[in-house]
Amino acid sequence: MTHKHFILELKAGATLQTHRGVIAHDDLIGLPWGSQVFSHLGNPFFLLQPALGDLLKNTPRNTQILYPKEIGFILVNMGIGPGQHVLEAGTGSGSLTRALAFAVGDSGHVTTVEWREDMQALAKKNIERLGMSDRVTFRLGDIGNGFGVENVDALFLDVANPYDYIGQARAALKPGGFFGSLLPTVNQVSKLLNALRHHQFGFIDVCEILLRYYKAEPERLRPTDRMVAHTGYLIFARPVIYAEGYGTEADSAASAPDDAEEAGDED
Amino acid sequence: MTHKHFILELKAGATLQTHRGVIAHDDLIGLPWGSQVFSHLGNPFFLLQPALGDLLKNTPRNTQILYPKEIGFILVNMGIGPGQHVLEAGTGSGSLTRALAFAVGDSGHVTTVEWREDMQALAKKNIERLGMSDRVTFRLGDIGNGFGVENVDALFLDVANPYDYIGQARAALKPGGFFGSLLPTVNQVSKLLNALRHHQFGFIDVCEILLRYYKAEPERLRPTDRMVAHTGYLIFARPVIYAEGYGTEADSAASAPDDAEEAGDED
Amino acid sequence: MTHKHFILELKAGATLQTHRGVIAHDDLIGLPWGSQVFSHLGNPFFLLQPALGDLLKNTPRNTQILYPKEIGFILVNMGIGPGQHVLEAGTGSGSLTRALAFAVGDSGHVTTVEWREDMQALAKKNIERLGMSDRVTFRLGDIGNGFGVENVDALFLDVANPYDYIGQARAALKPGGFFGSLLPTVNQVSKLLNALRHHQFGFIDVCEILLRYYKAEPERLRPTDRMVAHTGYLIFARPVIYAEGYGTEADSAASAPDDAEEAGDED
Amino acid sequence: MTHKHFILELKAGATLQTHRGVIAHDDLIGLPWGSQVFSHLGNPFFLLQPALGDLLKNTPRNTQILYPKEIGFILVNMGIGPGQHVLEAGTGSGSLTRALAFAVGDSGHVTTVEWREDMQALAKKNIERLGMSDRVTFRLGDIGNGFGVENVDALFLDVANPYDYIGQARAALKPGGFFGSLLPTVNQVSKLLNALRHHQFGFIDVCEILLRYYKAEPERLRPTDRMVAHTGYLIFARPVIYAEGYGTEADSAASAPDDAEEAGDED
Repeated sequence: MTHKHFILELKAGATLQTHRGVIAHDDLIGLPWGSQVFSHLGNPFFLLQPALGDLLKNTPRNTQILYPKEIGFILVNMGIGPGQHVLEAGTGSGSLTRALAFAVGDSGHVTTVEWREDMQALAKKNIERLGMSDRVTFRLGDIGNGFGVENVDALFLDVANPYDYIGQARAALKPGGFFGSLLPTVNQVSKLLNALRHHQFGFIDVCEILLRYYKAEPERLRPTDRMVAHTGYLIFARPVIYAEGYGTEADSAASAPDDAEEAGDED
Repeated sequence: MTHKHFILELKAGATLQTHRGVIAHDDLIGLPWGSQVFSHLGNPFFLLQPALGDLLKNTPRNTQILYPKEIGFILVNMGIGPGQHVLEAGTGSGSLTRALAFAVGDSGHVTTVEWREDMQALAKKNIERLGMSDRVTFRLGDIGNGFGVENVDALFLDVANPYDYIGQARAALKPGGFFGSLLPTVNQVSKLLNALRHHQFGFIDVCEILLRYYKAEPERLRPTDRMVAHTGYLIFARPVIYAEGYGTEADSAASAPDDAEEAGDED
Repeated sequence: MTHKHFILELKAGATLQTHRGVIAHDDLIGLPWGSQVFSHLGNPFFLLQPALGDLLKNTPRNTQILYPKEIGFILVNMGIGPGQHVLEAGTGSGSLTRALAFAVGDSGHVTTVEWREDMQALAKKNIERLGMSDRVTFRLGDIGNGFGVENVDALFLDVANPYDYIGQARAALKPGGFFGSLLPTVNQVSKLLNALRHHQFGFIDVCEILLRYYKAEPERLRPTDRMVAHTGYLIFARPVIYAEGYGTEADSAASAPDDAEEAGDED
Repeated sequence: MTHKHFILELKAGATLQTHRGVIAHDDLIGLPWGSQVFSHLGNPFFLLQPALGDLLKNTPRNTQILYPKEIGFILVNMGIGPGQHVLEAGTGSGSLTRALAFAVGDSGHVTTVEWREDMQALAKKNIERLGMSDRVTFRLGDIGNGFGVENVDALFLDVANPYDYIGQARAALKPGGFFGSLLPTVNQVSKLLNALRHHQFGFIDVCEILLRYYKAEPERLRPTDRMVAHTGYLIFARPVIYAEGYGTEADSAASAPDDAEEAGDED
């Protein structure tokens, strides 16, 4: 369920203008987290630390954005955490960039590639605002020419035609690294699966995540009336090294029944 | 979709016994990640780095375990990342403990409380195996007497009756911190919602996550036949500080229509 | 996906006023079904026979209405078809009444009970409009005093507190008949389950139906962005006759593990 | 949730052999519906009228079968009820045939086409067993040569390659009639959408239905652990007659934004 958030950098003398009235930053400075305050119209607000999820929601929406439900699963499934080197393309408005920079910590690094200069500028500003510029390298260019880095732990390819860059993706990833992508249509998924097979990626998974909120009324508990039905299909894979004479596309197809056997099991 | 994993610590001279044949560790040592190897029966295996998701799946199943789909969302939604101090109870077999320890990194810390000595011993062993013992404090005891720590950034309460410990939860959390819980039945959710209101928690969310896998066949793309229908309901909340004369339970009820208005929006 | 419908009774000289222009009924009379016509503004329309689903969508929305996804499942699951005698309460605006009257045909009958005279008048008008008045008996009254009929094949109880009328429901149903209800909150479901057990109903099922539409673009096939997340929980049960000394509530509880064993199987 | 059913024709002197013991038909004859009886091993059974859903579940599974959740929605969405003439291909084991024959009643008719003689024989037997042979015409043949009937109210095409028979479907349907199909893979759906557009079908809908059961325990109410994740995608469409100069494929594409606008609305 949504609660309206305003993300602020507190400055003496500044004011926050909202649709429910004005709040002076001076009234907030020094208050404990969680405190209730009131706008000049008497409407209540709470002073809270932002979670990663809140920060993501606050991204200016110039491009499609990943939702917290997908981002959390991406982090866990691709082993992304402190100390990792993660590659991303395209940067877009930097919403995933921020999540990655947050997760890899001071000891990790994010390289993010974008071909539109204006988008990159926006993403840079968003990262600076969070004070995480040291963790992120912004590259401008066409990933058709390669990502310009090698041996990354994980690569998330958030572009409309990832299937055109799987050779480059393989070149950038460390052996056994983690590949991920998110695509809105089934037609794109089919194309990506073909490209991943062709470039000898293995452990290919396709899934989607549905998040359903409830009205938090203890005596009238029930789901909300409507929900997001689709953000995209998640595709995960890993570059593997087949032994000589193995791993042709025919072999991949041959192994399908084995996978199918366990299909439907999440754990 | 499931791929069968074996998580190993490589030791010269050791062997891995599987249902598809035996593999000598010596044959693996020195191989690049992603390499294909064969058991003595000729069955193919791949040598891969484990992701957090893989580590979680490998937990011995003595207790109910959280799934990667929930864990990822918990991390993102509760702002859990490098440098945070996170509290958890009960420890159980330590599957969430491991995810938390991974996410907070070297600069963060996890305190986990359990009342069963045998469970704690198991969880300790699981954390040691990952080399993350420095990041975790194991406490043995009854959380009815409090958690024994204060000012934590986030608390995940993974017990059957979290509603009995909300006062203690509030005492342990820093103001505005993040509270989370996972419960299998709607009846427990109702009770927890009442307890959270009573102890003046705000920003209460209830949700559930459905994960659906697809058969990754590009020319016959379709969901798997069956899926996990339920692991549990996720409940999130934050301890807020109402201004004097506000925040009684009556007030909470009064604010419900406002929430309902935006119900169903995820973003 | 929604297509805007207008349900008409064609009359010489009449006009249909829409937000996309005016159409003369005279231009429609004599046209084959499926024909494309144009409003005075040049906007295209199609002349089509209504399906049951269309008729239901056209009900004036004075009350909560059942969706086609639930109605279809109710008909199949409760054995409702030609020749059956079906009982319903409350009548509401008559949307389910119409579906039932359609399904039981000329050889069947529907009895529907409502306590609000204005609602009943509205529902009557809606049934008359479809020319199915002969199939429906409208009763006005308080179902606390019983339904006024006996030996019905199936009873659908579409009221907010069905758990208060389960004794009356049992008295109205033929032995082994079909009971159904739809409830929005989990709290109501729990109460109904208790009442059904108390009155020795067996074969109790609780379920919910999620319907997800796709954007019908062959080269960009994907689910719609948003969907209905909840209309209600469906509850089905059948009045059974326990042998002497069996079927106490304790026994019911004792049989639970048996059910649980097969839980999750739809077929 | 599943309850184990045995569908019987009672005959004096016969016995029912089950995994939980033997029951003599003579012990059942004359009992009221709903009665509890016991096998020779003392296991309890109940004597109940079958619902349509029960009859469908009892179909011998030689072929993929439609589930009650899909069948109910098909009936409501395609306007199938008493008095209609419905066409189906292929017949398969006759599970949908039975649902259709039940729904159209004595005043309606079902024509079902199959090319495999053995399947047709099985389906015939299943219909005879229900005493509904008068309502069904079984045709043997290749639908590539047409369906052999015209002017049907509704046609359900339950074959693997429905896109190859859309011209024939159009010839069989009455103008403005109802077309439906169920397909397991997204690739098949894309092909069918193209064929429907090519043959000037309009009002094309694609959807899928998820049915989630709950454990019916009032104090521990929760979904079952696992569920069916996929039976197939439902596709509905109607043959329309475009005015001269309209309805080319380009026009169809042009109208897409309009549809998309309302995408996600069920009602």
